[in-house]
Amino acid sequence: MSARQDIAALKHAFAALVGAANVLDSAADMAAYETGARYDKGRAALVVRPADTAEVSAVVRHAVANGIRLIPQSGNTGLVSGSTPDESGNQVVLSLDRLNRVFELDRDNRSVRLDVGHRLSDVNARLEPEGLHFPIDLGADPRIGGMLATNTGGARFLRFGDVRKNVLGIKVVVADAEGTVLDFMSGLRKNNTGVDWKQVFIGTSGAFGIITECEINLELMPRQTAAALLVPREGAAVMPLLREMEIRLGSYLSAFEGMSRNAVESAFRHVGSLRNPFANGVVPDYAILAEVTRSWDARAGEQPLDAVIEEVLGEIWESAPGLLEDALVGSPAELWALRHALSEGVKHRGRMVAFDLAFRRQDVIAFCDWMKQNMPARFPDVAICDFGHIGDGGVHFNLVFEDASRYSAGRETELREWVYEVAVSDFGGSFSAEHGIGRKNQPTYDRYTHADVAAPADGLKSMISPGPLGAVRFGRN
Amino acid sequence: MSARQDIAALKHAFAALVGAANVLDSAADMAAYETGARYDKGRAALVVRPADTAEVSAVVRHAVANGIRLIPQSGNTGLVSGSTPDESGNQVVLSLDRLNRVFELDRDNRSVRLDVGHRLSDVNARLEPEGLHFPIDLGADPRIGGMLATNTGGARFLRFGDVRKNVLGIKVVVADAEGTVLDFMSGLRKNNTGVDWKQVFIGTSGAFGIITECEINLELMPRQTAAALLVPREGAAVMPLLREMEIRLGSYLSAFEGMSRNAVESAFRHVGSLRNPFANGVVPDYAILAEVTRSWDARAGEQPLDAVIEEVLGEIWESAPGLLEDALVGSPAELWALRHALSEGVKHRGRMVAFDLAFRRQDVIAFCDWMKQNMPARFPDVAICDFGHIGDGGVHFNLVFEDASRYSAGRETELREWVYEVAVSDFGGSFSAEHGIGRKNQPTYDRYTHADVAAPADGLKSMISPGPLGAVRFGRN
Repeated sequence: MSARQDIAALKHAFAALVGAANVLDSAADMAAYETGARYDKGRAALVVRPADTAEVSAVVRHAVANGIRLIPQSGNTGLVSGSTPDESGNQVVLSLDRLNRVFELDRDNRSVRLDVGHRLSDVNARLEPEGLHFPIDLGADPRIGGMLATNTGGARFLRFGDVRKNVLGIKVVVADAEGTVLDFMSGLRKNNTGVDWKQVFIGTSGAFGIITECEINLELMPRQTAAALLVPREGAAVMPLLREMEIRLGSYLSAFEGMSRNAVESAFRHVGSLRNPFANGVVPDYAILAEVTRSWDARAGEQPLDAVIEEVLGEIWESAPGLLEDALVGSPAELWALRHALSEGVKHRGRMVAFDLAFRRQDVIAFCDWMKQNMPARFPDVAICDFGHIGDGGVHFNLVFEDASRYSAGRETELREWVYEVAVSDFGGSFSAEHGIGRKNQPTYDRYTHADVAAPADGLKSMISPGPLGAVRFGRN
Repeated sequence: MSARQDIAALKHAFAALVGAANVLDSAADMAAYETGARYDKGRAALVVRPADTAEVSAVVRHAVANGIRLIPQSGNTGLVSGSTPDESGNQVVLSLDRLNRVFELDRDNRSVRLDVGHRLSDVNARLEPEGLHFPIDLGADPRIGGMLATNTGGARFLRFGDVRKNVLGIKVVVADAEGTVLDFMSGLRKNNTGVDWKQVFIGTSGAFGIITECEINLELMPRQTAAALLVPREGAAVMPLLREMEIRLGSYLSAFEGMSRNAVESAFRHVGSLRNPFANGVVPDYAILAEVTRSWDARAGEQPLDAVIEEVLGEIWESAPGLLEDALVGSPAELWALRHALSEGVKHRGRMVAFDLAFRRQDVIAFCDWMKQNMPARFPDVAICDFGHIGDGGVHFNLVFEDASRYSAGRETELREWVYEVAVSDFGGSFSAEHGIGRKNQPTYDRYTHADVAAPADGLKSMISPGPLGAVRFGRN
């Protein structure tokens, strides 16, 4: 499919299926679809923008018949090259950005059925007047389809879990000769009648099928929020602190996010408007953003949440005096602004090599400590700028070549292989907590996926969705 | 394998694998393993009781090599003949009751790794001093393995979800020639590195493999509980009531359980010690047990939970006067005693035909109302004694031939086919909310599972676990 005339024929065929206006082939039109969120620029043969499930099915059918690899693209906010074409120029981006019509709120079922092309922020803006939200809280603003394909978790996993835990149904087009549409849209919360096929498509990066519609669980919006910045006395104090908070706050505790000094300083440096909330402006080695929320308005006589968190911190201060160096109750908006500025801040510090790892909760600190001790000898020019989700064991382990001239693709590969080996083999962690596989993690998937599991994954792919689909390859396809 | 000498040879072989004392063949020893919880009595060739994963693997290997169907049995509390042998006398029960050694609490990860032969009550008794529990709340007391195999939900699904949402890892023996042990025991909360294979084994009734160990999420135990009995003015008031409660109580609301008059009266009749909490002792058409819990001790100045629920009910009474006929805040233990007595009570009312259905939440009442209107014409001698989980759409739709002489297997079949047809085809519901498939629901599975899904389920079974395993059959095995 490298010849121009082949692409012209393909364009013609897709235009008949989705309308000529929805097949893009100019460099200018395709640029945004070819460019990912971070160090990620491919080259597409075409971009096709179907409007609904039937059109997706038709496009898939034609692609499978002609051996064309489709790359499903949703909000294109992912960080592992899961939604962009490679550099071959042979892949076709199937954009889901026009699938944004169906939006059926079911107040009684506390759920919404919708096309996956809606942006998370749009979904929540439409739900706000109802006092409801889709509770997966992310720094980025993806479309729902990508959230399903990568099973995102985010900063409030501790309270609400990941996407997988909040999906009631999906409709999916698989890459077989018919472009078969599988309908798992019952909207039921309880249903144990055999294999729960939804689970195969959630979190597998679009390789097994293209989710086009879904029904998702909604939660009541937080109506009261308080947040505090905790400075643990040492790394070993972090888990006892989390446990003390959980014991005292139970399901009020909605986030427990760690931030390393390097990450915080990067954010302050990059975002001038951020206020430095630390005592005397001194950024500690490690800080934790703890958030508590309630999903109703304060009742008469009820202690305001600020007072609750203040009291809890006072109790911990007294009962376990070795844990806290400092603690301050602050404006949730201000503290979250800092937390959400970390990623961009770190990115501007130099050439970034990002890892999205997960561990048993206590191993986040253990792993980061080990790395801080061993990185200087192995990669003296790399700064560790970690932050993430202590409450669920996830960590955005970001590394930066501050002098970008020291960066090279070869050194990145060397660095990646070493970090993954320590994370997966030595610490029993995951090489992808919530970003998915993508082209970027394909070698790591190939390396660390046990044959007992890789083989059936390939078999499953061949069985239900044999055509070339998505950026990640299972087995021969 | 019908001849005695074949069974003797098999007994000898299994004895070499698990010890002679752990292979049972006398009628007296096998009786408990052959008898299910409700109208369920089969005949086993043998009962084999391995002690750990390696022994399970060895037993599976031998069974697969010899074409023996193993029926994995955990607590044997299921209601769909999923853990008992059929009447052929050719099936071997593989009991998991000796797999109860491993129990490794991880306080920091808020999880426990354990053998699946532990009883739910034992697990929670061991966790109680830690202030933790496995939050799946059931009327029965199963072993953990069965809970995984059927993905039980229970009465507090509204707050904590089902088993699937609370499993961090499993170890599973599949029915291939090697009795391969698949290890998904990372204990991670976030891990998106391909197909989440755990999901294939959870809720599939043991047909795809025998889960032998698991790691499960723990939650903080409720430290304060209050409960109220609500009498809605009419069926149409139930969903608005639930919504009003959810808006006002958010994550405090831990149960919202419906109870029909027939079910409540059956419980009173059967359990003499139950106090009748209703005004003047008059049982209403429908009542709801609403529970609120907090996972911490009451703080100074904090309203006690009894007062909170009282206040909330007062607000609903005033703001939505059409919803409540009556409401009373009562002792949680007493109200739950009533709730948990319903099943036994109904069972003693006559010959029971039980359905464990699920719907979109609002359709529970709609379905039951429809049935109340249409049952008398179709089955005039059947009483509807429904109760269940309005908060998650589940309903134990129990039917009773009060004059047991009107019952026959043929009429049961006729009744089942009609009820399932209405529930699944007309109301879009599930024929098994949380009891699983089992031999009892096999015809219903075969009837209502779309070929698009049944075929890949069979293919998946052939691929990863081709030997005969479990009471439910996917495809040829």
